[in-house]
Amino acid sequence: MKSVPFAESGLPFLGADAALPEAEIALYGMPMDWTVSWRPGTRFGPRAIRAASPVLETFSPYQSAALDDWRIADCGDLDLPFGNASRSLQIIEAAVGELVDAGKRPVGIGGEHLAAVGAVRALAARYPDLRLLHWDAHADLRETYAGEPLSHACALRRMSEVVDPQRIYSMGVRSATDQEWRWAEGHLHFFPFELLRPLQAIQEELSGYPVYLTFDIDVIDPGFCPGTGTPEPGGVVPQEAFEALAALADLHWVGFDLVEAAPSLDATGATAALAAKLLREGVIALGRALSRRPAYDRKEE
Amino acid sequence: MKSVPFAESGLPFLGADAALPEAEIALYGMPMDWTVSWRPGTRFGPRAIRAASPVLETFSPYQSAALDDWRIADCGDLDLPFGNASRSLQIIEAAVGELVDAGKRPVGIGGEHLAAVGAVRALAARYPDLRLLHWDAHADLRETYAGEPLSHACALRRMSEVVDPQRIYSMGVRSATDQEWRWAEGHLHFFPFELLRPLQAIQEELSGYPVYLTFDIDVIDPGFCPGTGTPEPGGVVPQEAFEALAALADLHWVGFDLVEAAPSLDATGATAALAAKLLREGVIALGRALSRRPAYDRKEE
Amino acid sequence: MKSVPFAESGLPFLGADAALPEAEIALYGMPMDWTVSWRPGTRFGPRAIRAASPVLETFSPYQSAALDDWRIADCGDLDLPFGNASRSLQIIEAAVGELVDAGKRPVGIGGEHLAAVGAVRALAARYPDLRLLHWDAHADLRETYAGEPLSHACALRRMSEVVDPQRIYSMGVRSATDQEWRWAEGHLHFFPFELLRPLQAIQEELSGYPVYLTFDIDVIDPGFCPGTGTPEPGGVVPQEAFEALAALADLHWVGFDLVEAAPSLDATGATAALAAKLLREGVIALGRALSRRPAYDRKEE
Amino acid sequence: MKSVPFAESGLPFLGADAALPEAEIALYGMPMDWTVSWRPGTRFGPRAIRAASPVLETFSPYQSAALDDWRIADCGDLDLPFGNASRSLQIIEAAVGELVDAGKRPVGIGGEHLAAVGAVRALAARYPDLRLLHWDAHADLRETYAGEPLSHACALRRMSEVVDPQRIYSMGVRSATDQEWRWAEGHLHFFPFELLRPLQAIQEELSGYPVYLTFDIDVIDPGFCPGTGTPEPGGVVPQEAFEALAALADLHWVGFDLVEAAPSLDATGATAALAAKLLREGVIALGRALSRRPAYDRKEE
Amino acid sequence: MKSVPFAESGLPFLGADAALPEAEIALYGMPMDWTVSWRPGTRFGPRAIRAASPVLETFSPYQSAALDDWRIADCGDLDLPFGNASRSLQIIEAAVGELVDAGKRPVGIGGEHLAAVGAVRALAARYPDLRLLHWDAHADLRETYAGEPLSHACALRRMSEVVDPQRIYSMGVRSATDQEWRWAEGHLHFFPFELLRPLQAIQEELSGYPVYLTFDIDVIDPGFCPGTGTPEPGGVVPQEAFEALAALADLHWVGFDLVEAAPSLDATGATAALAAKLLREGVIALGRALSRRPAYDRKEE
Amino acid sequence: MKSVPFAESGLPFLGADAALPEAEIALYGMPMDWTVSWRPGTRFGPRAIRAASPVLETFSPYQSAALDDWRIADCGDLDLPFGNASRSLQIIEAAVGELVDAGKRPVGIGGEHLAAVGAVRALAARYPDLRLLHWDAHADLRETYAGEPLSHACALRRMSEVVDPQRIYSMGVRSATDQEWRWAEGHLHFFPFELLRPLQAIQEELSGYPVYLTFDIDVIDPGFCPGTGTPEPGGVVPQEAFEALAALADLHWVGFDLVEAAPSLDATGATAALAAKLLREGVIALGRALSRRPAYDRKEE
Repeated sequence: MKSVPFAESGLPFLGADAALPEAEIALYGMPMDWTVSWRPGTRFGPRAIRAASPVLETFSPYQSAALDDWRIADCGDLDLPFGNASRSLQIIEAAVGELVDAGKRPVGIGGEHLAAVGAVRALAARYPDLRLLHWDAHADLRETYAGEPLSHACALRRMSEVVDPQRIYSMGVRSATDQEWRWAEGHLHFFPFELLRPLQAIQEELSGYPVYLTFDIDVIDPGFCPGTGTPEPGGVVPQEAFEALAALADLHWVGFDLVEAAPSLDATGATAALAAKLLREGVIALGRALSRRPAYDRKEE
Repeated sequence: MKSVPFAESGLPFLGADAALPEAEIALYGMPMDWTVSWRPGTRFGPRAIRAASPVLETFSPYQSAALDDWRIADCGDLDLPFGNASRSLQIIEAAVGELVDAGKRPVGIGGEHLAAVGAVRALAARYPDLRLLHWDAHADLRETYAGEPLSHACALRRMSEVVDPQRIYSMGVRSATDQEWRWAEGHLHFFPFELLRPLQAIQEELSGYPVYLTFDIDVIDPGFCPGTGTPEPGGVVPQEAFEALAALADLHWVGFDLVEAAPSLDATGATAALAAKLLREGVIALGRALSRRPAYDRKEE
Repeated sequence: MKSVPFAESGLPFLGADAALPEAEIALYGMPMDWTVSWRPGTRFGPRAIRAASPVLETFSPYQSAALDDWRIADCGDLDLPFGNASRSLQIIEAAVGELVDAGKRPVGIGGEHLAAVGAVRALAARYPDLRLLHWDAHADLRETYAGEPLSHACALRRMSEVVDPQRIYSMGVRSATDQEWRWAEGHLHFFPFELLRPLQAIQEELSGYPVYLTFDIDVIDPGFCPGTGTPEPGGVVPQEAFEALAALADLHWVGFDLVEAAPSLDATGATAALAAKLLREGVIALGRALSRRPAYDRKEE
Repeated sequence: MKSVPFAESGLPFLGADAALPEAEIALYGMPMDWTVSWRPGTRFGPRAIRAASPVLETFSPYQSAALDDWRIADCGDLDLPFGNASRSLQIIEAAVGELVDAGKRPVGIGGEHLAAVGAVRALAARYPDLRLLHWDAHADLRETYAGEPLSHACALRRMSEVVDPQRIYSMGVRSATDQEWRWAEGHLHFFPFELLRPLQAIQEELSGYPVYLTFDIDVIDPGFCPGTGTPEPGGVVPQEAFEALAALADLHWVGFDLVEAAPSLDATGATAALAAKLLREGVIALGRALSRRPAYDRKEE
Repeated sequence: MKSVPFAESGLPFLGADAALPEAEIALYGMPMDWTVSWRPGTRFGPRAIRAASPVLETFSPYQSAALDDWRIADCGDLDLPFGNASRSLQIIEAAVGELVDAGKRPVGIGGEHLAAVGAVRALAARYPDLRLLHWDAHADLRETYAGEPLSHACALRRMSEVVDPQRIYSMGVRSATDQEWRWAEGHLHFFPFELLRPLQAIQEELSGYPVYLTFDIDVIDPGFCPGTGTPEPGGVVPQEAFEALAALADLHWVGFDLVEAAPSLDATGATAALAAKLLREGVIALGRALSRRPAYDRKEE
Repeated sequence: MKSVPFAESGLPFLGADAALPEAEIALYGMPMDWTVSWRPGTRFGPRAIRAASPVLETFSPYQSAALDDWRIADCGDLDLPFGNASRSLQIIEAAVGELVDAGKRPVGIGGEHLAAVGAVRALAARYPDLRLLHWDAHADLRETYAGEPLSHACALRRMSEVVDPQRIYSMGVRSATDQEWRWAEGHLHFFPFELLRPLQAIQEELSGYPVYLTFDIDVIDPGFCPGTGTPEPGGVVPQEAFEALAALADLHWVGFDLVEAAPSLDATGATAALAAKLLREGVIALGRALSRRPAYDRKEE
């Protein structure tokens, strides 16, 4: 695992005190915000979320389980070259690939949403029948933005180049251009405005397939989560996200990322605490999924 | 239109790129906060809302329409004399009157709520059967405040002097003195605490009449909208306001204002984004109302 | 009453303009935050809440009553020794005891939650059949924290040493260790996540008993109340707390405290306004309870 | 003294604990910011400065004296009508007149600089040979601003209508229009950029005359004092102001005001602490001047 | 001039109200921060500086001249592709080249320091004997940073590839690696820690040569200028920079840029006001240089 | 060394990457703020300073040396019991004693000033002829504060109980009660207002004696360092402190602490950067002192 350039990144996330070789679940940071179109700051997201995590307990009363129930490592932040999006994605893809190849469930902490494209590339290469869940306020489906294909406004479009759009389930979107909206309706499984009800509706359909979640925190309303670059009012409440994460424990869930938290944009600390709690709920649910289905059982399509 | 003293005011609001003579809808700023009784700062509201508006798309998935579907101008901010409330109201009344006379639907951006009195005076003079919708956390019905009749705490009372109280529909109020509350119950159509349900209840009653909305953003809960001078906890969520605005598209809606946003009191930017989105939804709904009923069809009373 | 060391503390709380000897209800501040385990700042809570209170009216449209309907005094802040938790609790217990002995309903403004242990000790000594309501995001049931029994993380555990756990009703908790959670389920009346429904369920059971409420403001979601030391996402909305407070007017309610507000952690002022409104609703409900049942009618057990 | 409408204003300033009838020096607040042309907020200056004052000691090592050496009262804030500049000035003039007539040395705490016009009017009416010191970053010499003669940008011009310009000594100015600069050079004693050296140069010339100081805190560099409405980089350091204040103890100094502090614009609290220290140094120097020359010895001109 | 992709950018800078074709001096924004190694945010610098500029007067008492004395245009911000440093520099170089070719003196507003490399390339191509002044807290002389040659930590090194190091005068530097420091001492004219004295020392040496200044605002101490990405304590005071800018009026000064202001990192607004004042002083001094030497008189070397 | 309870504390300080057994210099954090009398927050000082330190280079151009020139360890933060001052001091004393006994030069990062009493106790017990340098805005000489002897307002008084006052050199003080000031003048070597000149004056007198420095960062002016609990305007500039630290390299300097930095009170980050730079300069100077005089040469008195 030495080939991955993880940098020192401060305190590990709450409860993530396992050494990497022993770990079942591996957290890693993607401190990148160079392609964002509005307020930058997500590069400090991973550190701020780790620093805030001790405000929480390791025990989740929502899932009656605790982070201590699994062996979790925090690899620290990837060492990404400031301002070079292409090389950054290569580094992320390589690192996540190594983690998956070593049998770890990867959990990425962003950073901007484009970073998750690296993770999805690594997963898609290893799980040909991967289903991609996308939780986001924005469609992120532009072909290019300001002339650049590598932009956080194009994140899902780039992912749709390595995962067949028919295997993508986009939920919670409430902002898009007219063109993006129609593309989403025409190509994806598209469930705008909500997370929990559509997730319950497709639970069975996803059963047995490897599922990866890319979770843009701005799907939560800015009232609860102002520390993000492009706040979009009218989002879901945190409890809906906690429930939706817990529901993923029943699937063959192989990893996720939580991106676009920029706690430096929220002086009150509420965003960092929320991001940390979403990570805790996600990691515990991922652990529960893992305990239920330890071996990967590839389905033919 | 040259007689109106519009000042330079920075970037136009998202999508408001029409020249004024061609415009169907005209935005204008009222950068005024001299009579506020608690925290000032709304004078910078119009600029901050415009500056934040590019965080949004022009397309509204709530109404399946976009700002681009109408010709919208942003006149900039009115040049108001610091500290002189009386003269400020005259300037606003004159400017809004010119806009209406030129066939534009006026959309005011505050600024403190007293500013909207100038707009209502202009509208009331031109639409004798005007119905006034008032969305606000506060009753604003004091006869005077600290001895002054021109105070933002007296805004609706002043409006009730040019629009018969029986034609005023006040919604969402959750703060008042005992006297104000009783006056509201006795003189107005008074629907405290809520927006959407009472609006649906009176939809038919308003049908055919020209309707103007004065919208104090503090009707939204401070959790979603902390950047306002007199935060009053316990308000509605943004989604309720989005729906209520969209419902106005079915009426003969002739204009509105959005006041009391003071984004400088909210370091996170959530308030500016919310105010911009409320404006977008309002302008699109106003456009839809306009497309449905282009000519004014005055009803006899 | 001169023996109590109240310090000057700035403006009295809204409407609390009675002299102490004449007062039915007595507010007092507990400016203490020395044992907190995460972000300090609650020591400035009482002053900030008083300073923000003029943003409100004295009239509550929720309860159709006003602060002016009762004689309310604001004693100011207790003079507590920085860094000495044990002596601080003694001072609080003595002061609250004097207030109760003088026939006042005490209303404490925190400060950290440990401070409320002093108040509960005074109440428990005077009402042997006291029922204790606990509204909080956190269980606060640790035996010790960092080796210290006097910690804000142990507040309810310390209270359970002077009030039989079977007489404690804990509501709204959504954070605890596994051990705390099981202890709560095994020893207390434990109603996690919610306030209003469980309160209605036990209303009859509490009837006739003296009831004291210790209200940690972090039971409200950090989206509405970011100014608190240990924000825990996923809480109740303010309206639920307003309703729950109003429901207490039907009980034999003998006093309460509102703790853990740290408005300096929330630059927007939303937290101070919310804390002030919760106090107003609580004091009015307490007044209503008082008007209904002026004399204490002790029940045999 | 009962005729003056002082409102409750929170904690008195550090060491100002005398009752007004016994006091030699009387502090009063002017919570007014309605005519400011840029960022408002100074209305909360008096309260914030009082609230910050306990961070200081009453003893000044610069002057080897303490606030306790004189009898000082804090009258609280004047009750000024929001948005009505003309009436506000009348109230200030009347209140300061009463204080002077009762033999108190008045010390005003702003609020915007226009408020000081009321104080200067009261002083000028009682001391016909008054010398006016003006410390400010801005000339404040406009005839009108945005058409209004009562603007904080016209403060010194308004003062020059009741004090002969030849008796005005303006120091520290570093911002003006070309016209203001020439007017200042042609009519006033004008010493731009500095405080201490010009003050020493005119010390003898001022000897024996009653001197009043109007001190706009923005003469200090925004690096030390960011909490002011119109920051102007390149100002003096605090020590220069401390020394200049101490030097006034050698004159027949009859009162002063400190205006334009807006601590709400400075989240760090540095501005409030600086304003409080400037007040302390000023009040002690005023006390020293008073001890030296208790009776007013009017000079013929 | 139409080929340059200037975007709408809000209010023009104070006094920059000439149309571009008539202008002698042309301001333009470089809203770029994609390669910064620490806190991003300078992309919003140009807009924030323009928005703050009305706090100033157009008249400079330091130079007894005003912005109105020259014809100044504000082109707005260049439309730069988020996250693509190479293409951004090409756009800047092209735009500045067009401005110079049209006979305008270019004044760039950053944005990160790397952006200035584009401007210097354009100038160096047009003035073969160009002298480059560099005012900065940091040496910016790394060959690469995190493997990238296009980084704001390499700005001066990149400039030294188009301007002979022997023609570069670096002043005020107080932070560097050991290697950078030795390189600077060995290759450049290197005057660490100070601006004014070294500038006066080389005034004669520069006489007659075209001079361009690249001014990183972090050369000013963070006490006066906290709103910058990489604050380095121990810098110069603003007055030293005002004087140094004024001294450039005596040279054949052909343009400058002011970079690395990130007002969003400074909630007080002091940084925006300082940056605006530095720009005003620089533009006036540039105008004075221009008035003195209208035609370019190339010297043989 | 295992007996000392160091907790995880995030990233090590810049350049402090040696393992403790090999280190010559050992940094440790004292995250304590329970006895402060005004704004708390210094408990997060050590982490914030470490987190900010990468903004600096390891090389000091002031001393022509770099952190890399010595072996430096960062032990992390001590695990201190919230709210228990007495036990906290014991833990600090024991830890510092172990470090000194193991031959390390200790460098403490506060935390409140009282914490340094633990360090001074450990040093005084090991160096009977210790000279104590005290740099501070406040005298800290109260016998008790609010009845408590263990208060940050009593820090130097407590130190004077283990180091003879005649061996204490207090510099830079500009705030004290009358009593404290006289006590300082009567008992200590007392040099108010300044650091560098008095230090140069006593340089010879200190020669040969072991010297420990306790450095309260509030001796720097709040303009440069607003992030501290009790800001006291009128302090020294950072450059004076850099020079004074460098001058200590010529003494037999055995360790120091830097206390009272509370970066959470300074949203701009300037305070954290300044504290980190002061630490860098101090550690390099300490290293230089160490290289010059490796063995302790005790002088008889």
